[in-house]
Amino acid sequence: MSQNPVIRHALSTTREGDFAQWYQEVVSEAEMAEESGVRGCMVIKPWGYGIWERIQALMDRRIKEAGVENCYFPLFIPLSYFAKEAEHVEGFAKEMAVVTHHRLIQDGKGGLTPDPEAKLEEPLIVRPTSETVIGAAMARWIQSWRDLPLLTNQWANVVRWEMRTRMFLRTSEFLWQEGHTAHADRDDAMAETLRALEMYREFAENVLAMPVIAGEKPENERFPGAVATYSIEAMMQDGKALQAGTSHYLGTGFAEASGIQYQNKEGQQAHAHTTSWGVSTRLIGGVIMTHGDDDGLRVPPAIAPQQVVILPMLRDTDEDAALLAYCEELRAALAKQSALGEPIRVLLDKRPGKATQKRWAWVKKGVPLILEIGGRDAAGGQVSVVRRDRLWREEGKVNFVSQSKDDFLASAAAEIEAVQASLHDEATARRDAQIVRGIDSLDGLAEFFGENARYPGWVELGWSRPTGAALDEVVAKLKALKLTIRNTPMDAPKPTGACSFTGQPAVETIYVARSY
Amino acid sequence: MSQNPVIRHALSTTREGDFAQWYQEVVSEAEMAEESGVRGCMVIKPWGYGIWERIQALMDRRIKEAGVENCYFPLFIPLSYFAKEAEHVEGFAKEMAVVTHHRLIQDGKGGLTPDPEAKLEEPLIVRPTSETVIGAAMARWIQSWRDLPLLTNQWANVVRWEMRTRMFLRTSEFLWQEGHTAHADRDDAMAETLRALEMYREFAENVLAMPVIAGEKPENERFPGAVATYSIEAMMQDGKALQAGTSHYLGTGFAEASGIQYQNKEGQQAHAHTTSWGVSTRLIGGVIMTHGDDDGLRVPPAIAPQQVVILPMLRDTDEDAALLAYCEELRAALAKQSALGEPIRVLLDKRPGKATQKRWAWVKKGVPLILEIGGRDAAGGQVSVVRRDRLWREEGKVNFVSQSKDDFLASAAAEIEAVQASLHDEATARRDAQIVRGIDSLDGLAEFFGENARYPGWVELGWSRPTGAALDEVVAKLKALKLTIRNTPMDAPKPTGACSFTGQPAVETIYVARSY
Repeated sequence: MSQNPVIRHALSTTREGDFAQWYQEVVSEAEMAEESGVRGCMVIKPWGYGIWERIQALMDRRIKEAGVENCYFPLFIPLSYFAKEAEHVEGFAKEMAVVTHHRLIQDGKGGLTPDPEAKLEEPLIVRPTSETVIGAAMARWIQSWRDLPLLTNQWANVVRWEMRTRMFLRTSEFLWQEGHTAHADRDDAMAETLRALEMYREFAENVLAMPVIAGEKPENERFPGAVATYSIEAMMQDGKALQAGTSHYLGTGFAEASGIQYQNKEGQQAHAHTTSWGVSTRLIGGVIMTHGDDDGLRVPPAIAPQQVVILPMLRDTDEDAALLAYCEELRAALAKQSALGEPIRVLLDKRPGKATQKRWAWVKKGVPLILEIGGRDAAGGQVSVVRRDRLWREEGKVNFVSQSKDDFLASAAAEIEAVQASLHDEATARRDAQIVRGIDSLDGLAEFFGENARYPGWVELGWSRPTGAALDEVVAKLKALKLTIRNTPMDAPKPTGACSFTGQPAVETIYVARSY
Repeated sequence: MSQNPVIRHALSTTREGDFAQWYQEVVSEAEMAEESGVRGCMVIKPWGYGIWERIQALMDRRIKEAGVENCYFPLFIPLSYFAKEAEHVEGFAKEMAVVTHHRLIQDGKGGLTPDPEAKLEEPLIVRPTSETVIGAAMARWIQSWRDLPLLTNQWANVVRWEMRTRMFLRTSEFLWQEGHTAHADRDDAMAETLRALEMYREFAENVLAMPVIAGEKPENERFPGAVATYSIEAMMQDGKALQAGTSHYLGTGFAEASGIQYQNKEGQQAHAHTTSWGVSTRLIGGVIMTHGDDDGLRVPPAIAPQQVVILPMLRDTDEDAALLAYCEELRAALAKQSALGEPIRVLLDKRPGKATQKRWAWVKKGVPLILEIGGRDAAGGQVSVVRRDRLWREEGKVNFVSQSKDDFLASAAAEIEAVQASLHDEATARRDAQIVRGIDSLDGLAEFFGENARYPGWVELGWSRPTGAALDEVVAKLKALKLTIRNTPMDAPKPTGACSFTGQPAVETIYVARSY
């Protein structure tokens, strides 16, 4: 986030100046989303939704390759389904949208009101997650060990009534995928839980160019009713952690509540072991806070709705026709090429408006490659191109490079792939530099994350994995410092030395951080 | 629907025997959907949802090619938004899901209940359609003529509380796309309305292999608040009409209610002209009732999640390995080919179970080509294949044809395309044969659609296009016969003679039919 004073950035707020305000400005200036006028719900605009469509397409491919089949389950869940699963209720029942009526009538004052005659006998809950209603379906579908594993997923909207909302990161309604699977035994269910976790890790790294740490959440952060919860954790540019995806091994608890039983090979009835796993539109918030800069968003090419935008510098003269023909030829040639294993997505932006205004709009949206083509370029077979991740020259000018059309076409796919790699490398280097080791006490944490610490990153330390009341005590002390335990990374070597909290021998590594 | 008595069909109910029961049996036996336990809501199972994913992908491509951009708007709509648009309310306000609370608490009897402390100040409506909330966004987005046309679409779930539901055809929650556009003037908005209509017509014919008649709905069937409503109407095998998609020209009424204004080129404020258009999961019901037969569904290859299924006749012997290798080679060779402009979708079904049982499961699901491969086929380089649309031989045997693997591979793509064409031809011939002309009075209609008429089809007749009370009278008389006016086909020649209802000169052609 170092700043070059001669550069005039496209945004009015810098990350350094006010990260939260900067985030809102990117969301707004990149035209990704806006407040809808409906409490806690956002409107996702074309550029934001286009990124979500790319995330969906690439994640869905991975889900299908794992043999998981997409279904669709009801939006509404009868109240009684929640009452069945006491632990589940504890976690979710608090803030949910409750449907109580099915009709409106005139209120006699020119308005409308719920019809008292149309009160539902049993209220319906707008799904906050679908374990209960999918569990009921699994109970119908599963009879024998031959029906297992049962691997389902749905892409859906869910609602969790949130008091304080933030676009993409925490909204009352959000879009997600939720995988739900049932298995014959613990080993198979745990393997699926970890497969989904690894799918998310690989996706975050390779598609979102967002380095993450995959690991197990501490007991206090488990999904209500889960036996084990795993997450991928990403570090935002302000050093805070973002939980970007979760995968849960649910044991047999949900199967017992929903009656998911099967006859095993020995002819006996047994409860299935279930899992669930999900990622949401929150990923888009993670992408913004991982890759955005003081000029707006930078979209990793793999999820960019457009990877290349061509801006003809139209002058409302007769020469425009030849310029447009040249640009169209360029567009068609690019669209025939592939990058990152798919046809290049390229847009020729012919809309009216000044080319520089349009340039800055695309800069803020974060398109990987922007081309500006003037009449002279067209006449000379040249292009002028800038990589969004290398936008500025030291002296404060936009880093446009002029080259022959042929040279550009020969290197375009490699350049797009280079942007993808470079965003990932930059984020990884920053993340790694902001993971601190060697702090091994609450006092040390208090000092490190103190009042004047800006963007302090994460602390990696060893702990004794306390449970129950002992864990509660640790969590409360961390909470007083506004800190949370993120996760225990997979396959980390066992730490040496004593637990930073209990003084007992450390048995595993954890990350402690501020978080979203 | 002619029946050959020597054939033992896969379903227990025939179309001839009980069409409604047959429909339910296809939905169930093809494993497309089932009741969810939540009133009026269905669970869409993998085969049904896979068909919807194909419909989405191919429709979405057409929507994007028309320059329409996908967005996402809130699930919840504040009650006051509905009160704004009086005409709109008239049509939709009756039966909607109303959210009144945002929290549950323990009821003291071991259950849960909406928290009286968490009553919403203003109830929220679960969207039955999104004109109002999208109108509010358009009012924010549109300032000048330069912002027009504004072309948006969303893929979403919507809820209309239905008393009597039927899977895919009428459910309380359903999935759809809703296009919403704003234009500077009537001509441009009308052109978009008709573009969407033509997109639906072309899609129904070419993708769903379902012939439809595109035309304008009569005044009494207009979308509430619309100036003109157009539809595509398909004929089901029982002769009833299914409205399979609609496109509305909304005039300036919605723009006035939502405040969608722009500064025109003359510098004056003007209201935009808006449109909306949608198709839903109802299309799947149309596909079933257009193409299904007494052995289950027949899926048009363009929307078949799998176009070819390979069934190895496994025997649990050492020879299985060679058989599977042969089948896998076949699968890989097919997957490299294209049909209907896309890679062939082929599944090698290695699940345990008897091959004939699996065959009938795939027959009922309607996979276009089914291959059964035994050890002898593998050894001799042969395949045994049946086309789902030519399932039976006259003598009552399944129409498997044995041919060399090479011959099959050389003709597979053409066979898939032939199934698509043949389903369309068959449906079109049946539809055309069931459109009756020459009936020109209510008495004639009463006789034609009388008690003993089975699957009577549609009647095409001329009318004087009455409006207001005169139309109401016609509609009431038709309603007494359980008939409705479907639409006035586009570009139909003006009829001669008198109106069948008013006796005045006929000015346009309409279709009268029973309907879903």
